[in-house]
Amino acid sequence: MSSQKNSPLRPIITLLTDFGNEESYAGVMRGVILGIAPRARVVDLCHGIPPQDIVTGAFVLATSYRYFPPGTLHVVVVDPGVGSERALLALESEGQRFLGPDNGILGGVLQGQPPVRAVRLENRQYFLTPLSHVFHGRDILAPAAAHLARGLPLEELGPAFKEPLPLPWPQPRRGAGGALYGEMILGDHFGNCVSNIELAEGSRGRVELPGGKVVELCDHYAQVEPGEPLALRGSSGYLEVAVRNGSALQSLAMERGSPVVWHEERVE
Amino acid sequence: MSSQKNSPLRPIITLLTDFGNEESYAGVMRGVILGIAPRARVVDLCHGIPPQDIVTGAFVLATSYRYFPPGTLHVVVVDPGVGSERALLALESEGQRFLGPDNGILGGVLQGQPPVRAVRLENRQYFLTPLSHVFHGRDILAPAAAHLARGLPLEELGPAFKEPLPLPWPQPRRGAGGALYGEMILGDHFGNCVSNIELAEGSRGRVELPGGKVVELCDHYAQVEPGEPLALRGSSGYLEVAVRNGSALQSLAMERGSPVVWHEERVE
Amino acid sequence: MSSQKNSPLRPIITLLTDFGNEESYAGVMRGVILGIAPRARVVDLCHGIPPQDIVTGAFVLATSYRYFPPGTLHVVVVDPGVGSERALLALESEGQRFLGPDNGILGGVLQGQPPVRAVRLENRQYFLTPLSHVFHGRDILAPAAAHLARGLPLEELGPAFKEPLPLPWPQPRRGAGGALYGEMILGDHFGNCVSNIELAEGSRGRVELPGGKVVELCDHYAQVEPGEPLALRGSSGYLEVAVRNGSALQSLAMERGSPVVWHEERVE
Repeated sequence: MSSQKNSPLRPIITLLTDFGNEESYAGVMRGVILGIAPRARVVDLCHGIPPQDIVTGAFVLATSYRYFPPGTLHVVVVDPGVGSERALLALESEGQRFLGPDNGILGGVLQGQPPVRAVRLENRQYFLTPLSHVFHGRDILAPAAAHLARGLPLEELGPAFKEPLPLPWPQPRRGAGGALYGEMILGDHFGNCVSNIELAEGSRGRVELPGGKVVELCDHYAQVEPGEPLALRGSSGYLEVAVRNGSALQSLAMERGSPVVWHEERVE
Repeated sequence: MSSQKNSPLRPIITLLTDFGNEESYAGVMRGVILGIAPRARVVDLCHGIPPQDIVTGAFVLATSYRYFPPGTLHVVVVDPGVGSERALLALESEGQRFLGPDNGILGGVLQGQPPVRAVRLENRQYFLTPLSHVFHGRDILAPAAAHLARGLPLEELGPAFKEPLPLPWPQPRRGAGGALYGEMILGDHFGNCVSNIELAEGSRGRVELPGGKVVELCDHYAQVEPGEPLALRGSSGYLEVAVRNGSALQSLAMERGSPVVWHEERVE
Repeated sequence: MSSQKNSPLRPIITLLTDFGNEESYAGVMRGVILGIAPRARVVDLCHGIPPQDIVTGAFVLATSYRYFPPGTLHVVVVDPGVGSERALLALESEGQRFLGPDNGILGGVLQGQPPVRAVRLENRQYFLTPLSHVFHGRDILAPAAAHLARGLPLEELGPAFKEPLPLPWPQPRRGAGGALYGEMILGDHFGNCVSNIELAEGSRGRVELPGGKVVELCDHYAQVEPGEPLALRGSSGYLEVAVRNGSALQSLAMERGSPVVWHEERVE
């Protein structure tokens, strides 16, 4: 059983949610997990996804999971459709497992992969009782992850599920002269704007912002003066626009969907 | 000794505070606990209780602790009276233990229970030295919990304490025709308003809001249109009022103390 | 090897950052650490340092680390110079180890100590690859801490480093009649203002605020009426100014750098 073979003695279960820090929702999920799988290590990936923001949640998961060791289980609760007919999934990919709603938030895990093992969470034997209509993170996802951490095979949780929804943002388009037409998909804590354009390491070039402003790709913030904009290959490989010691979100009036164009410099 | 019998090998100690995330207060409590009880697992229940808000803290504790396994210790620091004559308590109930100030915040643990074992934390042998006047969470509660986690009997921490303060909100009153008169006790992160009215699973009925607006109890958000109000049996069994994809706190102008009336539908 | 001798079986690695809670930066560092050192316990010291605020970060570290047991490793990421020529350090002091940028944030650990063992993190064998220019917390500090936790000697990480930068705030000056001239260095979550003046336990006296207002040192909040200002020896031994049930930051219009004068009462 590969799900048992991958189970370390003290499996890691991460939590990625839009719960914020004002309630005990994440705390209660920790309690449920440790009650079922006392040896699990519950690790916070992030609880600050903006409420119901599937795009940001998908980006954070897609750019984070590879930093965890094989056998890690990731539980994702950004779930505006809770209680409706949307499926809850558990799937396996690249030696890790992922549990969450089928709303695109797991899409980054599947990108370019061969078909994965995926099931729809339907086996009520592994649900908490009573089952609420409004907190499936606690009542379905947390206990499912804890049972997997104890070695339960994925297939026990429900029937196979064939086509999880893809990532909830568009792919950039290739235009004339090799330019890449993308868009901003999120803003971070420091006011940086992150685009949907992935850059190879060592890329050189410039980015065209709405209104025609052009910004060079730099290696780090200190290459421009405080208050000046710059482009960066962000820590996850995506093209970002930042303002040194400032906020690109505010200074450059960018938002989700703002178009950006990447012009790669050809090295002869 | 029941407190020893209940001690698992790696006891869980949860933290519930109003510290927010801007300082290291919770971090320092983790250090104190792990220095005394290296095998303990420190788990965050919540650090986002509004400053000094005993009502919200009591609600969060009352609706969360049952999701943790037997033997768990819960440390609660919402303590506007720190340094005054208020007692600090440790008590045992339903196979778990609870440490915090005697200001009503532990009241939900005692609801409807037989007399519990409770002591006042007075044995200075288990305090940190020097003892500050302003951070008893670090200097008294954290080390007390850690010593309990190592197997110290509750009685060693101080003398018996007979009457902990009850929950800091009123109970709903039964009115004419079976209507239940309650009030809003808190608003959550999603803008939902939580009342002091507990509903049995499967309840059917409607809730009357201030101004006479009447809202039906639904099973989940998707039963109304975006922007419309609905009533829900929340994840903890309390009657809540929400607005789909919006904030009931803002749209319905509700606040702590706003009266609500529950009309149960009689099933013939 | 003292760094091996100090390694407990399950070493604690704390994280102190300005990441906030909106992204997975801290979560990803946890993954990197647990991938390298599966037995480590990752503990959050604080992630709410204001962005790039070295003063607050240095204060939080200086006043927190002593509450952790010997052998603890502290990873500090408040790093406005990331990607520039600033050094990243690992140093040992008082039986604990500290990793972070050489920007003064580690200065409180060295205060008044004999020369410590310190190295500059340059051995790329212990960096993640590919190495980003913008997230050295993930790519250099987290793996370095994890390797130390597994027993790697400090010296393996790079060459000795002689003079780490000192604390990024001035020391108070002694004036006429024994008065101590200091200043406010930060405001906390409760609106309290913390100064750079350390008080001995049991100190008695009064503090002069900007504009000449004089406030007595109290033992706890309840000694003044709600809304009234008071001075306190804070939980870390520093002189603080607070307003009972209010915010000194707002009521007294104080900010970083506001001058305060401490007049110790002489006990005859």
